[in-house]
Amino acid sequence: MSATATSRYTDATTQRVMAGNGIEYAYRDLGESDVPLVLLQHFRGNLDNWDPALVDALVTDCRVVAFDNTGVGATTGTTPSTIEAMAHDAIAFIEAMEFQQVDLLGFSIGSFVAQEIALVRPDLLQRVVLASSAPQGAEGMHGWAPEVIGAVGAPETSPEGYISVFFAPTDTSRGAGQQAAGRIFGGRTSDRDEPTTWQTRQAQYDAVCAWGIPNHSLLQRVAAIDLPVFVANGDRDPMILPRYSHLLAGLLPDARLKIYPDSAHGFLFQYHEEFAADVHSFLEEAD
Amino acid sequence: MSATATSRYTDATTQRVMAGNGIEYAYRDLGESDVPLVLLQHFRGNLDNWDPALVDALVTDCRVVAFDNTGVGATTGTTPSTIEAMAHDAIAFIEAMEFQQVDLLGFSIGSFVAQEIALVRPDLLQRVVLASSAPQGAEGMHGWAPEVIGAVGAPETSPEGYISVFFAPTDTSRGAGQQAAGRIFGGRTSDRDEPTTWQTRQAQYDAVCAWGIPNHSLLQRVAAIDLPVFVANGDRDPMILPRYSHLLAGLLPDARLKIYPDSAHGFLFQYHEEFAADVHSFLEEAD
Repeated sequence: MSATATSRYTDATTQRVMAGNGIEYAYRDLGESDVPLVLLQHFRGNLDNWDPALVDALVTDCRVVAFDNTGVGATTGTTPSTIEAMAHDAIAFIEAMEFQQVDLLGFSIGSFVAQEIALVRPDLLQRVVLASSAPQGAEGMHGWAPEVIGAVGAPETSPEGYISVFFAPTDTSRGAGQQAAGRIFGGRTSDRDEPTTWQTRQAQYDAVCAWGIPNHSLLQRVAAIDLPVFVANGDRDPMILPRYSHLLAGLLPDARLKIYPDSAHGFLFQYHEEFAADVHSFLEEAD
Repeated sequence: MSATATSRYTDATTQRVMAGNGIEYAYRDLGESDVPLVLLQHFRGNLDNWDPALVDALVTDCRVVAFDNTGVGATTGTTPSTIEAMAHDAIAFIEAMEFQQVDLLGFSIGSFVAQEIALVRPDLLQRVVLASSAPQGAEGMHGWAPEVIGAVGAPETSPEGYISVFFAPTDTSRGAGQQAAGRIFGGRTSDRDEPTTWQTRQAQYDAVCAWGIPNHSLLQRVAAIDLPVFVANGDRDPMILPRYSHLLAGLLPDARLKIYPDSAHGFLFQYHEEFAADVHSFLEEAD
C-alpha cells in the first residue's frame, strides 16, 4: 500500500481495503512519512468532515490516513455502540493497511477510541494526539448538554447547529467557522463519502454516554498510557469542556497540553495551520 | 483589627495575635479590601520569604495578610506534621483576626493547607489561589526529587540551591531569581522574622511526604471544593511538576488554570506583576 500522489485532501480518491474482520473500510491516504498519522473522526463524521485545510496542513510533513470506521459512511458493517469495539475495528483497519506502527490523531469520540487503542494495543502506536478529549469516567460528562446534543444530534442537522458547537460565540470564531464549513461542505464536488446513518448516530451516542458514566476509579486507566500524548482543546468547547483536557493531561504520565483561545470543539479547524504545526512539532520531538 | 497604614511589605511591622488554640501568631497586614487575602507560605518559609515585590503588587488592590503558622518563624508552638493540623492552625489564626470570610493564596505546601481549609471550613472562604500545587494522593510525588530536597532541605541552604528550585535554568529566569532573592534576603533590614527551625523542616517534610502517598481514590476529595479556584504554576517547576496543576484544575469543579512560561517553583515571584494582576482579575470576577 502506498499513499496517493496528490497532496490535497479534496482531490484524494476514496480507496477501499478489506480487513480481517470482514469489513471493507473506505479511506483516503495522502502525503509521505515513515510513520503514518491515522485520523479518528468525531461524532457522526465521515471522511468529508475533516477540514481539508487541516489535512492539507498536516500532509506537508507527513502521510495522513483518514478512514471511516465500521458502519460509518462508505465503510460496510454496523456501527458498534462501545468505544472498545470501535477501537478493535480501528485496529483491524490499521492491520489491513499493513502499518507496523502509526501515530494517531483522535478528535472527540475519535479521541476516546485513540485512548482505548493505546490501552489495548500500545505497541501499535508511536505518539497520540487527543483533540477535544476526556478520560473515561470523569464526573459531569454523562451525555452532552441539551443545547449540544440538540444541535448536532438531531435527525437533520443544520450548518448553524454545527457552527454553534464547533465554534465559539465570537465574531472571530464564527467567521472561522463559516470558512471551515465552506471548505468541509463545499470543497469537494465529486467522490463524496456516504452520509452517516441514524444507526451510527445512535450507536455512537450510546458509546459517548457509556464513556461518561461517572466512575472515579476509571480515571486511573490512562496512567497506563506511557506514550507521549499531545492533549489539545478549544477554551470554550461546549461539547467536551476544557477541564477534561486538563484532567487528562494530569492523569497521563507523559502529556503536553495546549488550550487554544477563542475557540470551541472545532478549534483544530479554526487554527488549522497552528494546530498542524503543533502536531508536527510534537511528532518530531526527540523521545 | 485593621490593616497598617503602610503599603510596602518591607516596611510592614510584624504584629502578634493570640488565638483560641493558645498559639501567638506573628503576622503582617497591609492594604485595604472588604475580604482580606491571606497568604499561606512555602516549605521552611517565614514572613520574610514572600517576595516584597509580589506582596506590594497584590496590595495595590487588596488587603493582604501574611502570617507564620504554628511553630514557624516568630509564631509560638511546635510545627505539626500533617497538612490537616496545619489547616486547623491556619483557621485558628483567621478566627483570631476576626475575619468572617477570606480569600486564600496558598503557595506550595501552603497550597496543600489551602485545599484542606477549603474542605474542612468552606464557609470561611470566598476564593482560593493555588500556586505550585498538587492534589493529595497523586501518583509520582511521594517526596521531592533528590536534587530538589538536596537543595532546599539541607540543614544549611544556599542562595544557589534556592534559585535552582525556584527559577528555571535559563538566563531570563535565573536573572529574575537573582533579583527576587535580592528583594527577599536583602530588602528588609530591621524587624526581620525568626529563622525557621529544623523541627519545622522535618515536620513540614513529613507532611509533604504523607500528602504524596499515592492513592488514586483521594484525588476525588477536591471534587468537593465548589469555590472558584485559580490554579497556577511555572512550566518548569522541578518541585511540584506542572502536570499536578493540570490534574488539580481538572478535578476541581470550578478552576481556571495558568501555566507561566520559562519559570519554575517561584513563578509568582518572577512574574510578580503579571501574577498579581491575574490574581486581582480572578478575585474580582463576577460569580
